[in-house]
Amino acid sequence: MSSIPERPPAAGVLADETGYVLMRLGEALQALTDQTIGPDGFRGRHLHIMRLADESPLSQQQLSDLTGLDRTTMVAAIDDLERLGFASRRRSATDRRKHIIVLTSRGRQALADAAPQVEEVKHRLFRHLDEDQRRVLHALATRLLTDARAELGHKPDPG
Amino acid sequence: MSSIPERPPAAGVLADETGYVLMRLGEALQALTDQTIGPDGFRGRHLHIMRLADESPLSQQQLSDLTGLDRTTMVAAIDDLERLGFASRRRSATDRRKHIIVLTSRGRQALADAAPQVEEVKHRLFRHLDEDQRRVLHALATRLLTDARAELGHKPDPG
Repeated sequence: MSSIPERPPAAGVLADETGYVLMRLGEALQALTDQTIGPDGFRGRHLHIMRLADESPLSQQQLSDLTGLDRTTMVAAIDDLERLGFASRRRSATDRRKHIIVLTSRGRQALADAAPQVEEVKHRLFRHLDEDQRRVLHALATRLLTDARAELGHKPDPG
Repeated sequence: MSSIPERPPAAGVLADETGYVLMRLGEALQALTDQTIGPDGFRGRHLHIMRLADESPLSQQQLSDLTGLDRTTMVAAIDDLERLGFASRRRSATDRRKHIIVLTSRGRQALADAAPQVEEVKHRLFRHLDEDQRRVLHALATRLLTDARAELGHKPDPG
């Protein structure tokens, strides 16, 4: 692994706290994604929901379980997507009480348009980490996410 | 390093995206801290601000720079702390235009009360990672946070 600078960007007494650094990192990445894919009202959160919905037909509840976003946040985000004209709710053919989230053609276009910008910012962000470091970081973050969700009493994700 | 399970907790197509996992991890850690230190209105964010303010006298702007929280969020958080009776704003002796955030004795007590709970949840969360893994995770997350803030145009932190 290549060298990692010693000086922490986090603040004073909190710089040594891995949990704190990870919280600030999560926020910074969300802000960076939002800044990258703007315009108005189109956020990283929407992009993630759209990518999942594009992969397979999912209900609000399934999207909530998969992302770990609470129900209220998920409902608001899907409202946003409907307002942007990027997705719509359709009644499930198998269970009429459920709504399935379906991308519109405009939504699929927005997803395709955002992809290269997201790739570009990802490339810039991870450029100081080699393959091995990225792999290790991914594995450790995934492990912690599993444990943190278990602590929160989240159901394990089916995906 | 001990073995890390292969199965990702993140969802389908997004499970391989390190940035996505890190965003969800940051959220999960914030939710876990909030859940741990409740009661009403006392959040992880407040705890971090209080720990920094307890370490040295800081202005709102300095707290904002140190945490990476934007000005609006910081002002709201300090309003919360005043309402909880945990901190107060005092005019700086050296610059009358600035407010310094000072913990009250009740705030210092709340900080002391929360400490063992936070330690306990940290212990549970990181128990599957050995020393080496924690050290590597900390270094990589710190590096990424530096780069993400640079991308966001944040000023480098003095601490």
